[in-house]
Amino acid sequence: MARVEPRVLRGFRDYLPQEMIPRRRMLAVIERSFQKFGYLPLQTPALEYLDILMGKYGEEGSKLLYKFRDEGDRQVALRYDLTVPLARVMAQHRELPQPFRRYQIAPVWRAEKPARGRFREFVQCDGDLIGSSDPLADAEIIQLGCVLLDDLGVERYRVRLNHRKILFGLEGTCGIPRDKSVPVLRTIDKLPKIGPKETRLLLTVDQGLAPEQVDRIFEFLEISGENAEVLSRLEQFFSHEGPGREGVVELGEVLRLLESAGLGSQITLDLTIARGLDYYTGTVYETFLEDLPGFGAVMSGGRYDGLIGTFAGQEIPAVGISLGIDRLTAGLKELKILSPGEGPLAHILVTVFNPRCAPAAMEVAANLRAAGIDCELFPSFSKLSKQFKYAERRGMRWVVVVGPEEVEHGQVQVKDMECGMQEPVQKDRISEYLKAKVEGK
Amino acid sequence: MARVEPRVLRGFRDYLPQEMIPRRRMLAVIERSFQKFGYLPLQTPALEYLDILMGKYGEEGSKLLYKFRDEGDRQVALRYDLTVPLARVMAQHRELPQPFRRYQIAPVWRAEKPARGRFREFVQCDGDLIGSSDPLADAEIIQLGCVLLDDLGVERYRVRLNHRKILFGLEGTCGIPRDKSVPVLRTIDKLPKIGPKETRLLLTVDQGLAPEQVDRIFEFLEISGENAEVLSRLEQFFSHEGPGREGVVELGEVLRLLESAGLGSQITLDLTIARGLDYYTGTVYETFLEDLPGFGAVMSGGRYDGLIGTFAGQEIPAVGISLGIDRLTAGLKELKILSPGEGPLAHILVTVFNPRCAPAAMEVAANLRAAGIDCELFPSFSKLSKQFKYAERRGMRWVVVVGPEEVEHGQVQVKDMECGMQEPVQKDRISEYLKAKVEGK
Repeated sequence: MARVEPRVLRGFRDYLPQEMIPRRRMLAVIERSFQKFGYLPLQTPALEYLDILMGKYGEEGSKLLYKFRDEGDRQVALRYDLTVPLARVMAQHRELPQPFRRYQIAPVWRAEKPARGRFREFVQCDGDLIGSSDPLADAEIIQLGCVLLDDLGVERYRVRLNHRKILFGLEGTCGIPRDKSVPVLRTIDKLPKIGPKETRLLLTVDQGLAPEQVDRIFEFLEISGENAEVLSRLEQFFSHEGPGREGVVELGEVLRLLESAGLGSQITLDLTIARGLDYYTGTVYETFLEDLPGFGAVMSGGRYDGLIGTFAGQEIPAVGISLGIDRLTAGLKELKILSPGEGPLAHILVTVFNPRCAPAAMEVAANLRAAGIDCELFPSFSKLSKQFKYAERRGMRWVVVVGPEEVEHGQVQVKDMECGMQEPVQKDRISEYLKAKVEGK
Repeated sequence: MARVEPRVLRGFRDYLPQEMIPRRRMLAVIERSFQKFGYLPLQTPALEYLDILMGKYGEEGSKLLYKFRDEGDRQVALRYDLTVPLARVMAQHRELPQPFRRYQIAPVWRAEKPARGRFREFVQCDGDLIGSSDPLADAEIIQLGCVLLDDLGVERYRVRLNHRKILFGLEGTCGIPRDKSVPVLRTIDKLPKIGPKETRLLLTVDQGLAPEQVDRIFEFLEISGENAEVLSRLEQFFSHEGPGREGVVELGEVLRLLESAGLGSQITLDLTIARGLDYYTGTVYETFLEDLPGFGAVMSGGRYDGLIGTFAGQEIPAVGISLGIDRLTAGLKELKILSPGEGPLAHILVTVFNPRCAPAAMEVAANLRAAGIDCELFPSFSKLSKQFKYAERRGMRWVVVVGPEEVEHGQVQVKDMECGMQEPVQKDRISEYLKAKVEGK
């Protein structure tokens, strides 16, 4: 067979052990945080019928779907996020008791132009609360996000919170037609990235807004300050009944609830937060690491009361949060909160002196493991010097030598790689001996 | 937007929480078992270039690949197993120190005809040891499999072990041409499923073997008995130097090493085990739950010394084991080793009496969690009776009521759903109170 060049697709990557070890640790912390709130694990297929996913992410999103015809000529696509599949599950499994809380940690696929830090396959970690339209649910989801970051050891972060009803209200007061509504929001969402000049240009040229409309939008976007001040200025801005005013009231309630959970100081009302996805209907938020300005959001989400209804034929309210695991990993590494994979998982190597000593070495390793001590057995009949070199390279601390003389005397030699000391240990005392060493390490 | 019928593709499925909870528990045990031996986590992309996967699984396997052209017109496929991607990684990352041990738990995709218990997406759990051609490595991998099952609480299982060199030797003595070698093995592998009559038919009609050749194969396949007896009869069968004899020697060594690890009684030499995949070159094994006859293998694997070389251009020996997580879950459930998801993860519900009491309820829940007590907050302003009904339905044990009177007196009411007793607790003592209850449960 001709040699095939080993390579991965652009935008995809392998996670080698040194990356996976801290990542597994991080995910274990995150799962634990979800459990504190009673969120349950759920898993959905990687492939869905295309029509389940189509039209949920806006025009741009739909273009990024990995779609194809399967062997049975069905139009299918790899999931683009974890929210739409969840909505499908909720519509399909009406027996699930509501309020329903679930978390899911799984890869999603988007055929984006690969760039530094942007991949076509990446792991999302979502928590969603289904079945409540009350601000309590919004507050809980944001609180959950804060607890996640607290538990991971992040000290300074900021949740930037807004409300789609306020944005829809703004559009109403500007006379923006309904079919332009989401595209205009998506343009506003780009403001922090592209700046006001470019945003104005997109709003006038691409979206065809009049200068007065754009001025009014910018007048609104300039509302900022302490949360209480923003709320009162918003009340003035929306002097009449309507979605804008409703949004202000709801936002105020969510904020008060978060304050009673001790989170008031982590939240900033930010009217420039709009979120790119079509399906949001209420609160929207993005969370930033304060010690990494310009790093981008590590966690975001919002309320999407209409999405499940597109499958269920009946509105089921929902609110959720999503963590970008790769971005968060990168952030935590930069903040030195996440240490890189620290050498081996097992700190003990049992060597194999020669084929005749192999059964004895195998037995020693099996006994160590049975006593709760992790260890590696060198699996080849190589020179002892090579085996020691491997232990050194892997950063292992103790090497056990089971040589022919030791086998005869029912002993092993244990070498401490840090101080170089080596001593004989009776075979039946080896577990006890190494346990004391490992625990005293 | 018109309603879209919520549904999953045939051969795919959702895992709802009641299935996911025991599954997560099981996977945690399995990860721990891998760590005992120093196996490191690795993750590879779901999508690979088609030419990486093509030709590795035999003709039948290649037909089952989910393949398509991506947006950049590249021929890609979803991974069919975890072994070929690992081989690609080993060839691509020559810096990884060998012996290299890795585990991976991840879904794979095969466009099989769906049937009861057979899915197009399923989770595999693989452990592989790269860089050693010594029988020690084969023995360790089989031992690892046994420890996995031990740790999961399986009491009776059997590893059925064979060696491809013995099978190649058999083919040599029967005069079967090289290009027929693997197809004939694949036919032999079907024997336990389809019986001798059908197997004979396939060997003569499909593979074109002469009756004497088939007789010789069956003479060989009838060798059975105690392991020592099988080995000595095999030595007689392969009276001349050659691959068959080499295989017998290697098999004997692996067996002796497993005996010294205390596993002799779990292993049975079984000459009918051949494995379907093309890439095996040495030991091959399948593991069965003895208390579930006819259930099929839950764990299998073998040595594949040639596979990495197809990418690396240089032979790198390797041996591995693979668990079918879905089949194993089903088996453990049937054996009552794995209990189904037992109600909620959190056993405490904090209710919300009315909107005015919501901040106090939120505070109580936040304090409980900060004290290490998992709880759910009811996230809607529903009637209290509805909230109690939810707690009952979810099997929750304690319900905390934060009513207006209690708020005024700095108290909450805690109801034990099992005995129906309800008592008032001071707000600042609630964590202490519930901690004692939960621990005493």
